Amino acid sequence: MADTTVFEQHESELRGYCRVYPTVFSSARNARQFDEDGKSYIDFFAGAGVLNFGHNNPRMKKALIEFIEADGVAHSLDTYTSAKREFISAFVDTVLKPRAMDYRLQFIGPTGTNAVEASLKLARKVTGRRNVVAFSHGFHGMTLGSLACTTNNYFRNAAGVPLENVTHQAFGCDKLCMGCRLGCGRQSLDQLRAAYADSSSGLEKPAAFLVEAIQAEGGVNVASDEWLQDLQSLAREVGALLIVDDIQVGCGRTGDYFSFERAGIDPDIVNLAKGIGGYGTPLAMNLVKPEHDRHWQPGEHTGTFRGQGLSFVAGREGLRYFEDRALLDEVVAKGEFMAATLNGVVERHGESRCQRRGRGMIQALDTGAGEHAKAIVANCFEAGLLVSACGTGGRVVKLIPPLTIEQETLAEGLAIFTRVVDQVLSGGNP
Amino acid sequence: MADTTVFEQHESELRGYCRVYPTVFSSARNARQFDEDGKSYIDFFAGAGVLNFGHNNPRMKKALIEFIEADGVAHSLDTYTSAKREFISAFVDTVLKPRAMDYRLQFIGPTGTNAVEASLKLARKVTGRRNVVAFSHGFHGMTLGSLACTTNNYFRNAAGVPLENVTHQAFGCDKLCMGCRLGCGRQSLDQLRAAYADSSSGLEKPAAFLVEAIQAEGGVNVASDEWLQDLQSLAREVGALLIVDDIQVGCGRTGDYFSFERAGIDPDIVNLAKGIGGYGTPLAMNLVKPEHDRHWQPGEHTGTFRGQGLSFVAGREGLRYFEDRALLDEVVAKGEFMAATLNGVVERHGESRCQRRGRGMIQALDTGAGEHAKAIVANCFEAGLLVSACGTGGRVVKLIPPLTIEQETLAEGLAIFTRVVDQVLSGGNP
Amino acid sequence: MADTTVFEQHESELRGYCRVYPTVFSSARNARQFDEDGKSYIDFFAGAGVLNFGHNNPRMKKALIEFIEADGVAHSLDTYTSAKREFISAFVDTVLKPRAMDYRLQFIGPTGTNAVEASLKLARKVTGRRNVVAFSHGFHGMTLGSLACTTNNYFRNAAGVPLENVTHQAFGCDKLCMGCRLGCGRQSLDQLRAAYADSSSGLEKPAAFLVEAIQAEGGVNVASDEWLQDLQSLAREVGALLIVDDIQVGCGRTGDYFSFERAGIDPDIVNLAKGIGGYGTPLAMNLVKPEHDRHWQPGEHTGTFRGQGLSFVAGREGLRYFEDRALLDEVVAKGEFMAATLNGVVERHGESRCQRRGRGMIQALDTGAGEHAKAIVANCFEAGLLVSACGTGGRVVKLIPPLTIEQETLAEGLAIFTRVVDQVLSGGNP
Amino acid sequence: MADTTVFEQHESELRGYCRVYPTVFSSARNARQFDEDGKSYIDFFAGAGVLNFGHNNPRMKKALIEFIEADGVAHSLDTYTSAKREFISAFVDTVLKPRAMDYRLQFIGPTGTNAVEASLKLARKVTGRRNVVAFSHGFHGMTLGSLACTTNNYFRNAAGVPLENVTHQAFGCDKLCMGCRLGCGRQSLDQLRAAYADSSSGLEKPAAFLVEAIQAEGGVNVASDEWLQDLQSLAREVGALLIVDDIQVGCGRTGDYFSFERAGIDPDIVNLAKGIGGYGTPLAMNLVKPEHDRHWQPGEHTGTFRGQGLSFVAGREGLRYFEDRALLDEVVAKGEFMAATLNGVVERHGESRCQRRGRGMIQALDTGAGEHAKAIVANCFEAGLLVSACGTGGRVVKLIPPLTIEQETLAEGLAIFTRVVDQVLSGGNP
Repeated sequence: MADTTVFEQHESELRGYCRVYPTVFSSARNARQFDEDGKSYIDFFAGAGVLNFGHNNPRMKKALIEFIEADGVAHSLDTYTSAKREFISAFVDTVLKPRAMDYRLQFIGPTGTNAVEASLKLARKVTGRRNVVAFSHGFHGMTLGSLACTTNNYFRNAAGVPLENVTHQAFGCDKLCMGCRLGCGRQSLDQLRAAYADSSSGLEKPAAFLVEAIQAEGGVNVASDEWLQDLQSLAREVGALLIVDDIQVGCGRTGDYFSFERAGIDPDIVNLAKGIGGYGTPLAMNLVKPEHDRHWQPGEHTGTFRGQGLSFVAGREGLRYFEDRALLDEVVAKGEFMAATLNGVVERHGESRCQRRGRGMIQALDTGAGEHAKAIVANCFEAGLLVSACGTGGRVVKLIPPLTIEQETLAEGLAIFTRVVDQVLSGGNP
Repeated sequence: MADTTVFEQHESELRGYCRVYPTVFSSARNARQFDEDGKSYIDFFAGAGVLNFGHNNPRMKKALIEFIEADGVAHSLDTYTSAKREFISAFVDTVLKPRAMDYRLQFIGPTGTNAVEASLKLARKVTGRRNVVAFSHGFHGMTLGSLACTTNNYFRNAAGVPLENVTHQAFGCDKLCMGCRLGCGRQSLDQLRAAYADSSSGLEKPAAFLVEAIQAEGGVNVASDEWLQDLQSLAREVGALLIVDDIQVGCGRTGDYFSFERAGIDPDIVNLAKGIGGYGTPLAMNLVKPEHDRHWQPGEHTGTFRGQGLSFVAGREGLRYFEDRALLDEVVAKGEFMAATLNGVVERHGESRCQRRGRGMIQALDTGAGEHAKAIVANCFEAGLLVSACGTGGRVVKLIPPLTIEQETLAEGLAIFTRVVDQVLSGGNP
Repeated sequence: MADTTVFEQHESELRGYCRVYPTVFSSARNARQFDEDGKSYIDFFAGAGVLNFGHNNPRMKKALIEFIEADGVAHSLDTYTSAKREFISAFVDTVLKPRAMDYRLQFIGPTGTNAVEASLKLARKVTGRRNVVAFSHGFHGMTLGSLACTTNNYFRNAAGVPLENVTHQAFGCDKLCMGCRLGCGRQSLDQLRAAYADSSSGLEKPAAFLVEAIQAEGGVNVASDEWLQDLQSLAREVGALLIVDDIQVGCGRTGDYFSFERAGIDPDIVNLAKGIGGYGTPLAMNLVKPEHDRHWQPGEHTGTFRGQGLSFVAGREGLRYFEDRALLDEVVAKGEFMAATLNGVVERHGESRCQRRGRGMIQALDTGAGEHAKAIVANCFEAGLLVSACGTGGRVVKLIPPLTIEQETLAEGLAIFTRVVDQVLSGGNP
Repeated sequence: MADTTVFEQHESELRGYCRVYPTVFSSARNARQFDEDGKSYIDFFAGAGVLNFGHNNPRMKKALIEFIEADGVAHSLDTYTSAKREFISAFVDTVLKPRAMDYRLQFIGPTGTNAVEASLKLARKVTGRRNVVAFSHGFHGMTLGSLACTTNNYFRNAAGVPLENVTHQAFGCDKLCMGCRLGCGRQSLDQLRAAYADSSSGLEKPAAFLVEAIQAEGGVNVASDEWLQDLQSLAREVGALLIVDDIQVGCGRTGDYFSFERAGIDPDIVNLAKGIGGYGTPLAMNLVKPEHDRHWQPGEHTGTFRGQGLSFVAGREGLRYFEDRALLDEVVAKGEFMAATLNGVVERHGESRCQRRGRGMIQALDTGAGEHAKAIVANCFEAGLLVSACGTGGRVVKLIPPLTIEQETLAEGLAIFTRVVDQVLSGGNP
C-alpha cells in the first residue's frame, strides 16, 4: 500500500484527484502510469487532457535533455529566445498556414485560465462592452474572470464574491443529453438574437461569446456544426467577438487540430493550453485576429511564466505530429473504435440507462447518475484503468487517452471499461 | 543583429520585455544570459525574481535529467506522486519545522496569480466577508481577482470591467519614498482601526489584508516591522486574515527564507511562487493555517497544472540551499555590498536626485523620474547588464540578481550599473 | 400660445412630457385638463396612471380641505396618525378582508421606485440570495435597484454604472405582440425551471421574480393567467418570492382591484403606488406576507415622506369606490367599449398594421412603428386628447383614462383617437 | 391611551419612529403636535427637518385650499403647469438671482433619494467615471444608488447586495467629535490628492464628491469652511463634480438659504428636498450647472411624481420667507439662543460627558453614549417634547425645530430639554 501520510499530514484539504486515485504514482510512459507498488494503470485521463502525446514522449524526452544540457533558456518572461522562435515558426507553418488562418500568437501566462482571462480583457477592450455570454455546462477556469464563465456551482460558490459581467445561455448540443430539459439540444439562437435587437429586452449586447465546441468538463456535450455557425453569425451581427476555448479539445483531440474546424467557423480568438506544451509542463497561448490584437498596449496583461523554454521545446516536438494527417487519421480511427465500443455498451443496457457522446478521442458514457459514474471510476481504478467523471452531478464518464496510445492498450483499457460498466449498470460489482 | 522577424510578424502586440531587451537569448548560466550573437549579459533581473538559484543551476540540471530519463511523472494534476512527496517533505523539514510554523501546503495552479486568487477565495469563505484590503503600490497578479488587488492603472484599465471587492490603503514604508505624499512612510493604522470600529464610517470589515513585506513591482518599498506587526494586530482585532504575498521576495531573497520573518509576524496565508520551483518552470504554493484550511472542500479550487514534476524536482534541490544558513548569510553579505554601492551613488548625486531602498538581494535605486530609469535600463542593456524598472511611472530601477551570483559577477554588474547611473544622472550618456 | 419661457430658461434639459404636450396646464377636472389658453383636453393618460379617480375628485377635494382646515398632520414620517389609521383600516376592510388576503402594509417612501427597492431588499433578506429575475419589457423605476429591473436601454444607459444582480427572462404574454421574436407569447417556464435544477447551468436560484401582470410602460403586454400561475409555482419550487409590481395597473385599473386577481395567484409582495394616494399626491405601499415581513428590523429601510396625511385622506376616499363592485363593473364595461372601438380600428387597417392589447381600462394600440405612434400622440394633442406612447421604440399608444371618466367623454375621446389613427395609418394627416 | 391596535396588527414590522413616539397624533400647528388624547408636544424634530415653516403654516393652508378649490393641477408629471412656473420663477428670483447663482432646476421625483440618485447619474455621465466619494457618517438615502453613499451599517446591511461604486473618506469636521478617532476633525485632503496623482495608488479618480456641509443624520457634524473649499479645489483638480446634499440643512436651516454659502463654495449640483415643498408634501429638486445639465437627454431619468401642484403652491409660499433676511436673521438669533442653552448644559456636565455641535437652527448634544440619548429622547417625549437621536450608535440628540417656532415655545422646549438632560446625565430620571 502506498504511503500517503505526508500528504495527509501536510497537504491542504483542497486536494482532489488524489482521493479518486488513492495511490502514489512514481513513473509513467505513454498511456501507462505506475505506482510505488509497481501496479500499472492504463491512462484514459491523460492528466485532464494535457498529455495528448503520452507520458514521457520519447522524442520530447530527447529534445528536453538536449535543451537542458545545452543551457537553453528555461525561463524568459516574454523576452525573445531561440526556443520560442522555433515554436512560433513551427506553429505558424504547421498549423496556421495550411489552414490559411491569420492569427497573432499571444503568450499570456502558462495556464488555461490565463488564456481565458486575457481573451475576456481583449474582447472587452475591443468592443467597449462588459458582458460576456458563456454557456450552460461550460468550464473555463478558476480565477475570478474565467470562474464567472464557468458554470459548475461547486466552483462558483467558492468565489466568495458575486460573479459578474457574464450571462449564461443554453448550449447548442448536437443531440439532447440524457434527461436534459435545458433545451440545449434543440436550442435556436433566434430568441437571443431577437433579445439583442429589442432595446427593452433587458439584455445588453455582449463583448464576446465564449464557447467550447465540445464541452469536456461539462459532460462531453458536442455542439452541432449548424449551431456553431449560427453563433458566429450572431456574434458578427451584434458586434461581439467569438472566442473558442479549445483548451481541452484542441491540439488534435477531435481528429482535427482544432475542434471547431469541422464547423468551418473562424473565431476571433482561440484559447489553447493543456496539450500545446506537449510534455505536461505548463503553456498557454491565445490565437488572436490581428485586427483585435492591435488593441493591446505592450505588457498590458502580463505574467511571470509566459516564456517556458521546456514547454516550447516539447511543444515544438508535439507540432511535428501535425505535419501530416497521420496522427489525426489515427485519432479518427481510434475514436471510431472507442465510439463503437461504447455504442455496444449502450445497446446492451438501453438508451434509457446510458448514452454515448463524443468525437474523435474524447468519448464519454453518460450513465444518468452520479453514483453509477462514481462506482465505474472507482472500479476501473481498482482494475488498473484511470478514467474520470464529469458533467452535472458527475454522472458522465469521460475517456480521453493519449492520442498516441497503442491500439492494444486502447483495446485493453476499453475491455476493462466495458466489463466494469456492465457490472455497475447491471447492479453488480466487479 | 538578432533576427526578430518571426516575433514581429507573428507574436501579439502584447509582448513587453522583449522591447526592453531587444535581442534573442539562446542560453544562460547562473547570472549570465547569452544572445544569438554571442553577447553576454549579467542578469540582475533573474526572470522577474524567479531564478533565485540562477539559470540552469547544475544541481537541478542533473536532477531534472535523471528524473526525465527515469520517466518520472511530469504532470500529475493533484494526484500523489513520489516527486511531490519529496518536495513536500523537504519543505516541511527545511522551512517549516525549524521555524516552528504550522501550515498546510496548498497547490493551486502554477502561477502567482493562482496563489493569490485561491487565498482570496479562502479568506472570503472563512470570514463570510467580501472586501479585501490591499495597499497602494501593491502588485498581485493579472487575473480578475488578483488584478483587483494590483494597483497599477496601466494594468487595471485593461480589465474592461469594474474591479470590485477590494479597497486600497496607504502602505507602511519604513521611510518616505522620494516625493511620496501618500503618507505611506508615516502611516499609522489607527485611523483605519477607528473606521472599522465605527458603524457609520462606510468601511466594512475586510475578509483579509493582502500585503507584501517588500513591494517589489511597486518600487521596492520596504514595510517597517512595526507597521507589519500592527497590521497583524489590526487583522486579528477585526477578524480578518493576514495574507502575505511573498511571491517575489520570499524563498531567500531578503536574507531570510520569508521576507516577513524579521518582523516576527505569523500570517494566516503565505503566497509563494516564482522561486519555489527552482529552475524557472512554474510552481506556486500557498501556506495556510490548518484552522483555515479545513474550510476548503476537496477540489473546490482546481487547475490543470498543479502537479508539476519537474518543478517539484528542481524545487526540492532549491530547498537544499536552506538546510543551513550558508546561502542566507551570503545573501545578507551580498545585499550589504549592493546597498553600499548604491549608497555611494546616492551620496554622489544627492538625496534629492535619487534614493536607495531594499533589503537583502532586492535593492533598488529610485531615480525620481521614469525617463531616468528608462535610460538607465536601456544603457545597462547596451553595456551587458539586465535590470528593470518598477514603481509609479517606472522611475525605480530594481536589482534582483540570482542569490547564487558569483561575487565577481555581482561586482562587475554593479560597476556597469554605477557607471551608467552616474552618466544618466549627470545628464551624459554612456 | 402658452408662455413657456421660464421653463426653457430655467428647467433642466431632462424634462420630457412637456415636450410631448407643449402647453401650460392650469386646471383640471375629472378627465379633462385645461391650459392657460382655455383649451380643453380629454385626458387618456391620467398622469401616467395615477389619477384613477380623475383630476380633483370632488369627494377628495372636500375631504382634503376639511383635513387642512382642521390642522390634520400632513407629514408624519412613520409615526402613528389618525389619518393613517383610517387609511389602513379602510384598506384592510375594503381590499384585503373580502379577498381573504393576509398582508402587512408597509410604507416605504412615497414613490413606486421606493416600493420596488424595499421589496427587493426584503426578498434578498428573506432568501439570502442576490439575483432577482425581472422580465423583458418590464418597467420598475429609476433608482439604481429598481433600474436594474427596468429593461429600457434608454434609461439603463443613464445609470453610469453596471446594473447588477438582476437577470431578465422572456415575459409570458397571452398573445404574440406584433413582430415579437423574443418568444414571450409562447414562452414556457420549463427551460428556466430546468436551469435552476441543473447545478451547472450557470444560473443561480433567485431571491425573487418581479413581474407586472400587465406591462404598462413596456407596451401593454398582458401576461396569460396560466403563465402567472406557473411563475408562482416556479417561485415556490425554487424558494424565491413572487413580487407583483401593481403600481400602474392595480387599484382597479383592470376591472379587478389587483391586476393579478383573475389569475388566482397569491404574491408574496405586492407593490402599490400611483393610484393608491387618490388625488395625485405621492403615496406608495407594499403588501407583504407576514412570514416575510418579520424579517425586517425596525426602520431598516426608511425615508422622509412615508407619512403623507393628504394622501392618506384622499386615498381613503378612493377606497370607498371599492366597497362594492359598482366602479369595477363600470371599468369592465368601459374597458369593453374601449376594446371594441380599438378592435374596429384593427379591422379597418388589418392585423399586419396594428394590434389591440389590454384589459379593463388599460387598452393600447400597437402601431408597429414608433413614428406612427408619435404622429398619433401629436395629432391627438392637437385635437384635444392626451395619449402617450410606450413599448419598444415607442410604437404602442396607451389609453388609460381615469376610471371615473364620464361615458360621453370617453366616447368623445375615442372618436378623436380613431379619427387620428385612421388618418395616420392611412398616411394622411388630421 | 392611544389605540395603536390597527397599526400593530396590520402595519409592517419595518415601522420605526412610532416606536420612539408611542402615541397617535391627530393634529399639529406650527411647532406643536397634538395626540388623540389631547396631549401637546413641542416639536423639535419637524418631521426630520421637513417642516421648516411649521405644521400647517397658515399662509400655505390658505394657498392650498384656494388651489384645490380652483381645481389646480395637483399631479402633472413634468408637463408645464401654472403652479410650477410660479414656483420656478419665485425660486430663481428669490434664491438664485440674489446670489448670482446660475443653475438649472431639475425635478427628479419627490424624494431626497431621487435627487441623489439623479445627481449620481449625471456626474457619472458627465465624467465617464464610476466611482463616487462620499464621507464617513454621511446619509444620502435608501435606494440602492444613494444607499451606497449612506454610511450607517444598519441601513447598508439591509441592501442584500454589495454596495458598489462608492468609496468613503473621512469628513472634514470643524472640530473633533467626542471620542472620534477617524481623523475627521483634523483631516487634510492632501493624502487623497496625492493618491489621485499616483497612478499606482489603487484609487481611481471619482465622478463626484458627495458631501453634506453639515451631516445631520450622521450626528450634526459641521464641516469647516476651509475643508469644503479644499474639497472643491480637489474636485476641480481631478475633474470630478462637487455635489452638495443640502436636503436636510438647506432651505434656511443654518441661517443662510444654503448651508454651504458661508464657505463660499460653488457646487456643481445641489440636492434639495424636505423643506423645499413647504407643507410636508413631497418635493425634491436638483440645482445643476448648465454645462452639466446639457448632458441629459430628455426623460432619461424619470418618475411619476415629479409635478406636485400642492408642493409647488406651498413651496412657493415658503420662498416668500426668503425675500428678505428677516427669517434668516431670526434663525441666526434662535440658533444662538439654542447654542447658548446647550453650552450651558456642557458647562454643567463637562466636555468629557457631552459636546454641543451645530449651526443656526440645527443644534445637537453629543451625549457620548446611545443609552443616554435614548433616555433623553424617551423622557423628553414623556415631558411633551419631540427630539430625536442620530450619529453613530444614536448617541447624539438633534434639535431641529421649525424655523418659525415662537420664541416662547422654543424656550419652553429648551427648558424641558435641559431639565431632562440634566437628570439623565446626572444619573437620575425625570
